[in-house]
Amino acid sequence: MNSSTPSVLVIHGPNLNLLGEREPEVYGTLTLEHVDGLIRARARAIGLDVRIAQSNVEGEIIDLIQDARTWALGIVINPGGYSHTSVAIRDAIAAAGLPTVVVHLSNLAAREEFRHVDLVAGAAVGTIAGFGPQSYLLGLEAIYRLLRR
Amino acid sequence: MNSSTPSVLVIHGPNLNLLGEREPEVYGTLTLEHVDGLIRARARAIGLDVRIAQSNVEGEIIDLIQDARTWALGIVINPGGYSHTSVAIRDAIAAAGLPTVVVHLSNLAAREEFRHVDLVAGAAVGTIAGFGPQSYLLGLEAIYRLLRR
Amino acid sequence: MNSSTPSVLVIHGPNLNLLGEREPEVYGTLTLEHVDGLIRARARAIGLDVRIAQSNVEGEIIDLIQDARTWALGIVINPGGYSHTSVAIRDAIAAAGLPTVVVHLSNLAAREEFRHVDLVAGAAVGTIAGFGPQSYLLGLEAIYRLLRR
Amino acid sequence: MNSSTPSVLVIHGPNLNLLGEREPEVYGTLTLEHVDGLIRARARAIGLDVRIAQSNVEGEIIDLIQDARTWALGIVINPGGYSHTSVAIRDAIAAAGLPTVVVHLSNLAAREEFRHVDLVAGAAVGTIAGFGPQSYLLGLEAIYRLLRR
Amino acid sequence: MNSSTPSVLVIHGPNLNLLGEREPEVYGTLTLEHVDGLIRARARAIGLDVRIAQSNVEGEIIDLIQDARTWALGIVINPGGYSHTSVAIRDAIAAAGLPTVVVHLSNLAAREEFRHVDLVAGAAVGTIAGFGPQSYLLGLEAIYRLLRR
Amino acid sequence: MNSSTPSVLVIHGPNLNLLGEREPEVYGTLTLEHVDGLIRARARAIGLDVRIAQSNVEGEIIDLIQDARTWALGIVINPGGYSHTSVAIRDAIAAAGLPTVVVHLSNLAAREEFRHVDLVAGAAVGTIAGFGPQSYLLGLEAIYRLLRR
Amino acid sequence: MNSSTPSVLVIHGPNLNLLGEREPEVYGTLTLEHVDGLIRARARAIGLDVRIAQSNVEGEIIDLIQDARTWALGIVINPGGYSHTSVAIRDAIAAAGLPTVVVHLSNLAAREEFRHVDLVAGAAVGTIAGFGPQSYLLGLEAIYRLLRR
Amino acid sequence: MNSSTPSVLVIHGPNLNLLGEREPEVYGTLTLEHVDGLIRARARAIGLDVRIAQSNVEGEIIDLIQDARTWALGIVINPGGYSHTSVAIRDAIAAAGLPTVVVHLSNLAAREEFRHVDLVAGAAVGTIAGFGPQSYLLGLEAIYRLLRR
Amino acid sequence: MNSSTPSVLVIHGPNLNLLGEREPEVYGTLTLEHVDGLIRARARAIGLDVRIAQSNVEGEIIDLIQDARTWALGIVINPGGYSHTSVAIRDAIAAAGLPTVVVHLSNLAAREEFRHVDLVAGAAVGTIAGFGPQSYLLGLEAIYRLLRR
Amino acid sequence: MNSSTPSVLVIHGPNLNLLGEREPEVYGTLTLEHVDGLIRARARAIGLDVRIAQSNVEGEIIDLIQDARTWALGIVINPGGYSHTSVAIRDAIAAAGLPTVVVHLSNLAAREEFRHVDLVAGAAVGTIAGFGPQSYLLGLEAIYRLLRR
Amino acid sequence: MNSSTPSVLVIHGPNLNLLGEREPEVYGTLTLEHVDGLIRARARAIGLDVRIAQSNVEGEIIDLIQDARTWALGIVINPGGYSHTSVAIRDAIAAAGLPTVVVHLSNLAAREEFRHVDLVAGAAVGTIAGFGPQSYLLGLEAIYRLLRR
Amino acid sequence: MNSSTPSVLVIHGPNLNLLGEREPEVYGTLTLEHVDGLIRARARAIGLDVRIAQSNVEGEIIDLIQDARTWALGIVINPGGYSHTSVAIRDAIAAAGLPTVVVHLSNLAAREEFRHVDLVAGAAVGTIAGFGPQSYLLGLEAIYRLLRR
Repeated sequence: MNSSTPSVLVIHGPNLNLLGEREPEVYGTLTLEHVDGLIRARARAIGLDVRIAQSNVEGEIIDLIQDARTWALGIVINPGGYSHTSVAIRDAIAAAGLPTVVVHLSNLAAREEFRHVDLVAGAAVGTIAGFGPQSYLLGLEAIYRLLRR
Repeated sequence: MNSSTPSVLVIHGPNLNLLGEREPEVYGTLTLEHVDGLIRARARAIGLDVRIAQSNVEGEIIDLIQDARTWALGIVINPGGYSHTSVAIRDAIAAAGLPTVVVHLSNLAAREEFRHVDLVAGAAVGTIAGFGPQSYLLGLEAIYRLLRR
Repeated sequence: MNSSTPSVLVIHGPNLNLLGEREPEVYGTLTLEHVDGLIRARARAIGLDVRIAQSNVEGEIIDLIQDARTWALGIVINPGGYSHTSVAIRDAIAAAGLPTVVVHLSNLAAREEFRHVDLVAGAAVGTIAGFGPQSYLLGLEAIYRLLRR
Repeated sequence: MNSSTPSVLVIHGPNLNLLGEREPEVYGTLTLEHVDGLIRARARAIGLDVRIAQSNVEGEIIDLIQDARTWALGIVINPGGYSHTSVAIRDAIAAAGLPTVVVHLSNLAAREEFRHVDLVAGAAVGTIAGFGPQSYLLGLEAIYRLLRR
Repeated sequence: MNSSTPSVLVIHGPNLNLLGEREPEVYGTLTLEHVDGLIRARARAIGLDVRIAQSNVEGEIIDLIQDARTWALGIVINPGGYSHTSVAIRDAIAAAGLPTVVVHLSNLAAREEFRHVDLVAGAAVGTIAGFGPQSYLLGLEAIYRLLRR
Repeated sequence: MNSSTPSVLVIHGPNLNLLGEREPEVYGTLTLEHVDGLIRARARAIGLDVRIAQSNVEGEIIDLIQDARTWALGIVINPGGYSHTSVAIRDAIAAAGLPTVVVHLSNLAAREEFRHVDLVAGAAVGTIAGFGPQSYLLGLEAIYRLLRR
Repeated sequence: MNSSTPSVLVIHGPNLNLLGEREPEVYGTLTLEHVDGLIRARARAIGLDVRIAQSNVEGEIIDLIQDARTWALGIVINPGGYSHTSVAIRDAIAAAGLPTVVVHLSNLAAREEFRHVDLVAGAAVGTIAGFGPQSYLLGLEAIYRLLRR
Repeated sequence: MNSSTPSVLVIHGPNLNLLGEREPEVYGTLTLEHVDGLIRARARAIGLDVRIAQSNVEGEIIDLIQDARTWALGIVINPGGYSHTSVAIRDAIAAAGLPTVVVHLSNLAAREEFRHVDLVAGAAVGTIAGFGPQSYLLGLEAIYRLLRR
Repeated sequence: MNSSTPSVLVIHGPNLNLLGEREPEVYGTLTLEHVDGLIRARARAIGLDVRIAQSNVEGEIIDLIQDARTWALGIVINPGGYSHTSVAIRDAIAAAGLPTVVVHLSNLAAREEFRHVDLVAGAAVGTIAGFGPQSYLLGLEAIYRLLRR
Repeated sequence: MNSSTPSVLVIHGPNLNLLGEREPEVYGTLTLEHVDGLIRARARAIGLDVRIAQSNVEGEIIDLIQDARTWALGIVINPGGYSHTSVAIRDAIAAAGLPTVVVHLSNLAAREEFRHVDLVAGAAVGTIAGFGPQSYLLGLEAIYRLLRR
Repeated sequence: MNSSTPSVLVIHGPNLNLLGEREPEVYGTLTLEHVDGLIRARARAIGLDVRIAQSNVEGEIIDLIQDARTWALGIVINPGGYSHTSVAIRDAIAAAGLPTVVVHLSNLAAREEFRHVDLVAGAAVGTIAGFGPQSYLLGLEAIYRLLRR
Repeated sequence: MNSSTPSVLVIHGPNLNLLGEREPEVYGTLTLEHVDGLIRARARAIGLDVRIAQSNVEGEIIDLIQDARTWALGIVINPGGYSHTSVAIRDAIAAAGLPTVVVHLSNLAAREEFRHVDLVAGAAVGTIAGFGPQSYLLGLEAIYRLLRR
């Protein structure tokens, strides 16, 4: 790894733009803007350069992952509802070949049964789920350590 | 509820733009334009202000649902083929928090087994399926009564 | 169709006689008598002649469906708990050959998994579920339009 | 076995009273009355005394089976749609302890998947399915031979 | 709870009228009359007023449960074969809102796999299974203690 | 159908050559030779010309079915253990286009779960199971009546 | 059975030592010590000599069951979470050959789906579930009557 | 068919734009540009006019299929990861009514189990899978012959 | 690869000898002889030497595959109904180690559910299904290109 | 058992004739001839008279098993791929009534999921799997001890 | 929360004592001692007081969790192979009522299917999986932030 | 391998200490002591040094397996009821890296369905099941030959 600050892509999947307004008993009261502020602060603190993107469109998320191959060294992604159904995002992660951490705000294992299967995570390095916005910050730390290896 | 005309969003999901041309033995011979005319007429008759949108893109449908939070009081949606697989649209409906009616042209319970599971409907108020274009008009009446409560 | 008022049979399946008293958080607070009043009023308004019957017995519901063949032009039925298990009621609807609308007070897709399969609906024209007593009134409209075709 | 004519109960399950009118492409065009005539003729020819009953009510069918214990030596039953769901009729046959033949007009193995499981047949001696009204006549012969043993 | 003797309904489901004659190796040799005598004696001993009913008809069992709402404080029910298939009886128990104990003569967990699912018990307070006629007596004690609370 | 005696092929599938010696508590004590005698006698009595073949080889059974197209008007087949697994024999029956009756000595619905699925029967006219060697004789009668139509 | 007081082993499985403190809305507010007092009092009242043991270790529970063969005449066991997964405890009960009653504080049929299968109960005489600490007392009565036979 | 060169649409689904860079041990080392060259050369050789499109967005693929109705006579599509989950693409193919060939670079039957179900192929004429870029060329030949009929 | 014409084995599995006569609406009207003519002509045109064999016997198909190891460079096989059940043919292909193409006349993904699993294809290079006799010709081209590599 | 050397049949199922050449990383490098030498040597050493047969044909394997009834006292069989699908071979072993040991070269529990079910073994005395050619030799020892009892 | 250093229990489940020696390609080359050093260092750095325990015994792990109620404010647990089967550990976590983080060294979603279900995680706050020893350190950070709330 | 006698660990899992007393119709009449004598005699005969341990505790069995890494060259283990549920024992065997043979007294394939899955065997070299105490002796021979290689 060269000496410059490594770049990481953070992807918010579908419906995360409503964070803070949407079902606060499940997802907390912080807005996405607020969460992005936390992400940027943490990234700066540990020496990562982050770009953050949000999309509700499965294919755009694939585009984002593919594009990251040209400039990023790792990905932190919250695939939202696509986690359980998207073979295509899983394939994009495998194709991109970048170390990728899947994060979730809520603890999927404690929710409806159709949220127990995580197809996307099968192509990632690992998963962090259940800690609200902290899941992203822990994800950043995880990717940081993966890159340092 | 205030005295002005309540606004409702009607969403046509994937392939509904082909209505009238596509498999008429399953979906009938009326075009989408014709159906939209029926929807507008019925809305006017019962005092609803409708906006109608069609998209083949799962993520755009999520955008439409999210956007409706700022101006609509209810949603009538035909999620088409996404009904059976889209956790993300289900989450969008739950996130938007607007009373939502899922409608289908055909009677899913009488078709292939993979159409028997309706993931999206789990986040809606209710479902109306099997009455061709009338499903939309019944959906409008349903949303009207939900708003009047 | 001849010019006289068309007759429609409305069937309340098991436990609907307890309506208003039974689990009001699920089924609402209107009694069946009250609901029947609403059904009759709506039927009169749109020019249908309804007869209403309630039974807790699967076989009696089959008898009612069969008997309707001699005098009714359509059926609106809430099969209650039999929806998920009764091949025999499904067969009765197929045998009677009358246009039939299945209605449910609650949104089955949002309840226990054993309520997600609707065997009876497979033999009907369509389904309306989740609107409380309004499901019946929407069912009447649906049958009215089916008969008008 | 004593020398008098042995008595056999023939039970028609739900919807068989509509025979000949109901879905003739599946069940044929003979009425139940006509079929009963064939059954009686065949019974007479092979020296059986038959009583025939039809009911749409699962519990009445159980009553019929139980009652047969006091006067019949065998049962031929077409459980119709209850074949696939009725543990209670299965238990009644096991409880009655009479040799019982399950018959079906149609070939269940060639129809919808929910008709492939035959719970009731598990408590019978055997099954005859797919020969239209002839299934009953073959069932009579089968029971006749079982009684002769 | 007032000071008078509390009333309890005991329901015998399908085929229990054959008790003592039916498969004695599974269900024992006592007749239902004998068992009813034991039930009445035990009820008297612990200060309960019981009424006992038997029916083979699913819908009649629902009627019995519903009717109990007007006079009984609890229910002991052996749903027999309906335990595994009757959403409607489950709904009746939930609708009646009376503390209900499900009892079984045999130990369902040690029998055929289709007897392992107990749909009806899901709406009851608890289950007692496997002790022959004693299951009813233990059920009476259970309901007695539930009422005393 | 011409006026000469119609020809029918009777096929004994795998292990039926051991009849009478093999697990007599399941399959009875008559040998296959004896059963063939019964089949021939019954065929003669009702005016059918039978040819009988036995094979343990799935593909030879397919050959027999195909060959029957040139000389037989119907088939009675006991596919033995191949009933539950042979798509190829099912296809052969569909390809041959001759009315075919599947027979079984034992009542499959009362045996191990892997014997409950009867793939082959899905291409036949119907099934007769559970009557020991009488299943063949009833099968002959069934085919006779099918041919007389 | 000899005239001395029969001995019974009562086993509390994993996590029951936390009774009263743990999820009181599910398991009640009585401590295990309190429940043991109730068990001892009831045992004395009906003439049973009880020994009570608690263990969180699957293998220790097996040891307890095996050891009981040398001194006890019956077992009342609450296998807790092991009920759904322990083939080994099931085998221990079968091996010990003592009449055994499985008890549960909560009504498993009304909880998560993974609690619906009760592997251990398949080797017991019967089950009592859903009555809180009363399940143990009813279990004692059940074992008492089993021993009196 | 008229005498002019028939037009065919070739669709590359999600992640195929990474061909040659992505997991070469699974998908080979040719880039998509190179593969498109092969497709164009083959098309020219057999007299087809091809237009080629790639998209990662499920809904855009639906748009492409729908649009083809106005100018193309057939479709060759590699739905990538959407093959296993997209009811909507399946519906688009059925709606478009053009002969469609599904192609895959890899042999899905030899990969993870979630790749064994091909929902999209159910609406196509046929499938060609496992031959790397040759799958497209064989698909062109297949469509050519379908159009020549 | 040496300069002589490479040899390829073409195997027709069960029931393909009836081609043209068997269910023409599914399999077309060409006879196997005719199809073999097409195969030979195409082989000649692209420079392959083919030997063609047909068998209804699973084990003979295994023999054919094994024998090909001594003289052929590739295999085109239509395993017919054995595709869905034959672990043994799958093992034979894996054992032979020759590049193998599985072909099917019909589009299995659009037929009964038991035809959706293709066990045999898991050991092949790839699959071509749904193009009638053209599936064989495409299969030849596929094997030709595999051999040319 | 008489004093002469007991005879045992050893059956090699499908594809075992390729042993040593076929997938040596799974099945080892010894040829079948070599393995047969080992089998004969071991048999001689422990005083068994073996006959060895190999067949790729399911029905021929059934023939071999049936034939062994007249001369052998036990069977050692490697059913290869038929282990997982052949109800007919299972039935043959049950019918033959000879003590039978199922052997496998590889450890099926560590391979693909479709190799985890061993239908054939259900009718045998026991199974030995995973030891390469030694599985046969251990199987001989097992049968020897079974015969000595 | 008081001002003293909060205490956290770290539990290593079965086989983690072999860390560094066991399957290093899956679990890495650091020994447990080394990992414990990392855990202690990190804990000290962020101001947590940790106690670390390892056990291969399911019931001892339950004991550890229960005991933590008296002194710890949170738990980080790697349940190893018990994650997929232990209802009892899940119940212990729910009973203890302490915020709990489940960690795994490997990414379970990318391993065998029986590792995809995580029963234990359903009672935890969240899960961190796939980062080798870093999973523990991230788990400490997660618990630290949960306690700070 | 050095020239001294190789050491092997033999593990008896849960309930095997009851051997001879426990369900003799399933497990035979020899006591464990007797079986251990046979094991020691055979080991001595073939030149193995065995240590034998029995435990009912899953975690202790894991301890035994781990400990064997320091002194043994192979393991023969009968995991009893843990075979079907213990991911942790499976992981212990994989972690220990010693050649391991799983043995069972009874033929699991012929017993209840929940005994058909053998999770533990997936990490072993092979399995020997169904030969009573001989399974251990055959297991010793198998391990002996594995060590000799």
